[in-house]
Amino acid sequence: MSAIHARVDVDLGDRSYPILIGPGLLADPEAWRPWMRARRAAVVTNETVAPLYLKALGEALGACGTAIVPIVLPDGERFKDAATLNSVFDRLMDGGCDRRTPIIALGGGVVGDLAGFAAATWQRGVPFIQVPTTLLAQVDSSVGGKTAINHPRGKNMIGAFHQPGLVLADTATLDTLPARELAAGLAEVIKYGLIRDTAFLDWLDANLPALLRRDREALAWAIRRSCEHKAEVVARDEREADLRETLNLGHTFGHAIETAAGYGNWLHGEAVAAGTVLAAEMSARLGWLAESDVARVRRLLGAAGLPLEAPALGTAAYRDLMAHDKKARDGHIRLVLLRALGQAVVTGDYPARVLDATLEECTGHA
Amino acid sequence: MSAIHARVDVDLGDRSYPILIGPGLLADPEAWRPWMRARRAAVVTNETVAPLYLKALGEALGACGTAIVPIVLPDGERFKDAATLNSVFDRLMDGGCDRRTPIIALGGGVVGDLAGFAAATWQRGVPFIQVPTTLLAQVDSSVGGKTAINHPRGKNMIGAFHQPGLVLADTATLDTLPARELAAGLAEVIKYGLIRDTAFLDWLDANLPALLRRDREALAWAIRRSCEHKAEVVARDEREADLRETLNLGHTFGHAIETAAGYGNWLHGEAVAAGTVLAAEMSARLGWLAESDVARVRRLLGAAGLPLEAPALGTAAYRDLMAHDKKARDGHIRLVLLRALGQAVVTGDYPARVLDATLEECTGHA
Repeated sequence: MSAIHARVDVDLGDRSYPILIGPGLLADPEAWRPWMRARRAAVVTNETVAPLYLKALGEALGACGTAIVPIVLPDGERFKDAATLNSVFDRLMDGGCDRRTPIIALGGGVVGDLAGFAAATWQRGVPFIQVPTTLLAQVDSSVGGKTAINHPRGKNMIGAFHQPGLVLADTATLDTLPARELAAGLAEVIKYGLIRDTAFLDWLDANLPALLRRDREALAWAIRRSCEHKAEVVARDEREADLRETLNLGHTFGHAIETAAGYGNWLHGEAVAAGTVLAAEMSARLGWLAESDVARVRRLLGAAGLPLEAPALGTAAYRDLMAHDKKARDGHIRLVLLRALGQAVVTGDYPARVLDATLEECTGHA
Repeated sequence: MSAIHARVDVDLGDRSYPILIGPGLLADPEAWRPWMRARRAAVVTNETVAPLYLKALGEALGACGTAIVPIVLPDGERFKDAATLNSVFDRLMDGGCDRRTPIIALGGGVVGDLAGFAAATWQRGVPFIQVPTTLLAQVDSSVGGKTAINHPRGKNMIGAFHQPGLVLADTATLDTLPARELAAGLAEVIKYGLIRDTAFLDWLDANLPALLRRDREALAWAIRRSCEHKAEVVARDEREADLRETLNLGHTFGHAIETAAGYGNWLHGEAVAAGTVLAAEMSARLGWLAESDVARVRRLLGAAGLPLEAPALGTAAYRDLMAHDKKARDGHIRLVLLRALGQAVVTGDYPARVLDATLEECTGHA
């Protein structure tokens, strides 16, 4: 009997897939059995996660008749690069992985993004399964098929859309998650409330303490609600026209912070939090948010233990880094801003001086 | 007035695109104008092709209001690798190329495969245009959306399906094509006859001398007929289930030859020719082809100036290299063979001793 607490379906026609959420799933052969037909599967993970979960995953798959080819990478955003990707290809070649061999990502966002890109491009595409072990990956990066590696000068610049066939979110893995990583995941949870769900924002106001003490029920609900939002957005706009871009609230500023600081010095969720404050501040300067709304954004992110202040890179450096954002068109920066709490828009139609004023007034005072 | 001699459409729903065939097209603003809206385009080419055609292409695009970002790579199959791909990404970043900037491949199969893979993965996919300047690229590799780079131990192991929005085959570029490259292209032309068109085989028997002296009418017909076959196969089986795999006649043997010899020492078309002889010999040993059919295959490829004899790598080495082929399943080699001239099949269901006998008896006697 399997401990699946919730199932959220991502509706993409003949590429639809489920997100299964529950404690202990990754080690449960019954959870795997309906999805696993292959004689072997490559498991991409990292040096931190492997000692915790690789053995249990291998045994569960073994009980389904699937042998694993383990591929253990160094841990960290700075390894989400072309060199590490090539090492994965070498191991896939060594392991005799062919066009039908699934690649399973066991880890957080970095592992999922890189393993997903390997799955998108190995032999022009092989089956892919996400087993996210961080809150950030469970609520956001494992769902929706975005895969990528970083370019030295731009985050996620090289990648592909490649949907998984299954996302298996084992909530028990959050027990071992460092507090800093838990907070980073909450940045993306709060994001869903800010861009499209004020009722969820209210729930978060009340339940952040429970989430921080890792209350299982609270976490399960936050993950489920986040996945429902992500699934709905992705089903309506898989390839990122406008709607899906709203999921990037805080990310244009955030990617600039991550790139400037050197990959891995800010966690992705931390940079998104500081970027979300900037997006809220800019929205206020455009007359869209009240000061009290901005204060609420700061309070929520602060209560989650996230940094609120972006570093002082200088306005010119921010502009230059942000012009490389994938939403940019002919060097003009398009931003996700808030018309109101719960209502995000993507726009390049703002006065340049408002962006400059926001960057000047709201970065680097910490 | 534009010199478009033929148009072949690849029918893929909302991703359909035309192949325009004619002399002088790449330098003709009128040929480009209906397809070119972008303010800038990246042009990926190589050191051999750039001096011949880059200026003319840039001027034609300039007349349409499109500035080019030239990216000139070293020439040769051994540069179809991860390092060269990364250099393309660096130049795209330097050139401010964003998600809407088309990438244009100006060159042969190597340039098209690598530029296409860059287009498939830069910012998770940007528009792509093929301007093939070799016969092989015009009749085969520029059409159908297969893009790839090589792994050191396996050809085209890393790639994606990414259809171009336009293929512009300028037949005047064949005037400058080295004779060895012309012959290599004829290997793929002959392939279409062997796998699905005996009337075209008859035409080739009669017209190979005209093709070799670069008779414009003969070349234009061979290109058009080849593109019609490719377009039909790709429209029916874009992602390579069974039908599209038949286009790989001679390629499983051929890729082994290319990989073993070191990329670039055999031209792709040369390796395909020698591989096609092996496929025909094996088909004869299975009782499917008559000796006279095999003789005809040898005569056609030989008349085109192509090598007929695969190198003596040893049976074990061939088997090992071929087991990495993308058609292989769990290490078992699937092959494109000929039930009859004009009738290809893909099968893994053959006695191992027949493959071994073919490799033993038909390689390395030159």
